Amino acid sequence: MGWAFLLHVDTLKVELGERSYPILIGAGLLQEPDRIREHIDARDVLIVSNSAVGPLYVPPVTAGLSAQRVLEAILPDGEAHKTLTTVTRILDVLVANRFGRDCQVVAVGGGVVGDMAGFAAACYQRGVRYVQVPTTLLAQVDSSVGGKTGVNHPGGKNLIGAFHQPSAVLADTASLATLPVRELRAGMAEIIKYGLICDAVFFSWLEAHLDALLTLDAAALAYAVRRSCEIKAQIVANDEREEGDRALLNLGHTFGHAIEAATQYTQWLHGEAVGAGLLMAAAMSHECGLIGAEDVDRVRRLVERAGLPLRIEGVRPTAVLDHMHRDKKIQSGRIRLVLLKGVGEGTVTAEYSEAGLRRTMDAFIG
Amino acid sequence: MGWAFLLHVDTLKVELGERSYPILIGAGLLQEPDRIREHIDARDVLIVSNSAVGPLYVPPVTAGLSAQRVLEAILPDGEAHKTLTTVTRILDVLVANRFGRDCQVVAVGGGVVGDMAGFAAACYQRGVRYVQVPTTLLAQVDSSVGGKTGVNHPGGKNLIGAFHQPSAVLADTASLATLPVRELRAGMAEIIKYGLICDAVFFSWLEAHLDALLTLDAAALAYAVRRSCEIKAQIVANDEREEGDRALLNLGHTFGHAIEAATQYTQWLHGEAVGAGLLMAAAMSHECGLIGAEDVDRVRRLVERAGLPLRIEGVRPTAVLDHMHRDKKIQSGRIRLVLLKGVGEGTVTAEYSEAGLRRTMDAFIG
Repeated sequence: MGWAFLLHVDTLKVELGERSYPILIGAGLLQEPDRIREHIDARDVLIVSNSAVGPLYVPPVTAGLSAQRVLEAILPDGEAHKTLTTVTRILDVLVANRFGRDCQVVAVGGGVVGDMAGFAAACYQRGVRYVQVPTTLLAQVDSSVGGKTGVNHPGGKNLIGAFHQPSAVLADTASLATLPVRELRAGMAEIIKYGLICDAVFFSWLEAHLDALLTLDAAALAYAVRRSCEIKAQIVANDEREEGDRALLNLGHTFGHAIEAATQYTQWLHGEAVGAGLLMAAAMSHECGLIGAEDVDRVRRLVERAGLPLRIEGVRPTAVLDHMHRDKKIQSGRIRLVLLKGVGEGTVTAEYSEAGLRRTMDAFIG
Repeated sequence: MGWAFLLHVDTLKVELGERSYPILIGAGLLQEPDRIREHIDARDVLIVSNSAVGPLYVPPVTAGLSAQRVLEAILPDGEAHKTLTTVTRILDVLVANRFGRDCQVVAVGGGVVGDMAGFAAACYQRGVRYVQVPTTLLAQVDSSVGGKTGVNHPGGKNLIGAFHQPSAVLADTASLATLPVRELRAGMAEIIKYGLICDAVFFSWLEAHLDALLTLDAAALAYAVRRSCEIKAQIVANDEREEGDRALLNLGHTFGHAIEAATQYTQWLHGEAVGAGLLMAAAMSHECGLIGAEDVDRVRRLVERAGLPLRIEGVRPTAVLDHMHRDKKIQSGRIRLVLLKGVGEGTVTAEYSEAGLRRTMDAFIG
């Protein structure tokens, strides 16, 4: 089935038993009040957004609702505010207005807003429904699927949180038009990742349509978001709590998180660090004899065309390695890496040489 | 099978699929290091307790462990400290010491300690294992079973929390010897409740053995705790998230919570308020023609013998009714009461007259 023949709004179901939910994807979705009302049907609704995105996308969501009470919690923008203190503000609004167990919390924004709104919904009265309206590419293809919610602790990223599945995700790809291009490119890293870990055909499709995606071709975006969600949804459905295959989703992330940490989360966007992490994972896979040089090259070319950094400068390789080892300590035991057995086939392994890892660090960092 | 022939340590399994866990019950259980080690087997263990109970029961637990690292978080005693701020202190210890996902949090104390340690365990890295070592009668028969964790918000009780099942519960009935008698009596209210909602035989057993329980007869206590846990575990196994029968466990609690709230949680212990609530539920059941006067009398006699208050003085009936109605507003819709169709048979109903409810309030309050 060709990607160009999709319906205006496409629905994908995440299969999680009684926690199953639909993901709606389409350009202009937020202009359809009926669809919004169908999935945001509570009497009391709290919309959580931030100061940057709120003014643009909260009004169309609100306009679609027939709820008795619609309140807004507008949070300060940015990862620095993803804290328990900010979540407490959301909870305070829910409590102060005596919202019941049958209310809904709606997250309108990127991953930070979604993580916090989701965590507040998970904790309020031990769990109320929440709906994700992701407005960034990264949120549409990654953080809105999977049920991971939470906040940062001064001691580390995402250390406090809950698994709490949304009751629906409404991804309007038209909202990507207002996204800064750097963030659009950062989102591509996660999309490329999905192809790499389990779908060679999708990876080839990305090679053919990357330019269309970067120029915001509506049909191409809708297909890329849909296929990404589909892949993540399937992996999550098989392994909701990350006890097995879900670890594949971390391709490029062990490297990426260490890069982010070593640069104090200020220099690189998450997606940019993951982009470099994908290159490093490919290089390590080659070091381990899992893939050939031509596959390494395919990965590099696509990451390069996406406009993602090919090298992380301004930080020492050992600093990044230290953060990886700190991660290792946290997980107790030798750090397991997600590597590639080919384009379209990820694998989790602890079989690699420390020397090879150091060579890889030196090749991409510093 | 007679209650007097139980093993020294009795094990009950709560059936919740992959979240199933054992409850061990016995006098002197905490003196058996092997059993403690069997269920607290992590490399890194954080013991959470409070300033009153910690000095008595943390040492025997610690002595039983072979963990590499055992840390303690000793919280201030009392319901007033059951807040997100106190939970943050527990999380800070976990983060500061880089505890991994494979750590265990152990709650040693009553319901307040268990609720907070459980909630911290639910949130840390999106969920780590925790073990309950309940040292009060109320915690042994109620809060250690069911997976409800959480804290209070200035706007209401238990408004912030999570469902998180323990990996094991170790209930040493010998620890009840150090419990103030008022708290022992308060715990009896919950035990009587279990008989009332679903086990007439157990209710009769309580009528026969109440004096043995109040004088801390080891075998009687072990049996009462075991049977209570068994009943709660079965109800929870059938309805983990309180969508059906689990509501029966609220017998006496709608009244009880309103009494607690109307007296600012300072005058009556939770179990005492529930005791009065049981009487009110019985009276309302009679008002509705569900049970006869002789059943009302049986309930009253047992509650009286347990030394629980038969009347709540010093507060106006309308104040309590207001709090019940506030509850109603929160739940959106007419308040549903748990009533009795007989001793040993609870029922949830919205079929009652407001006049009858007011008569009941007047009879027991003010």
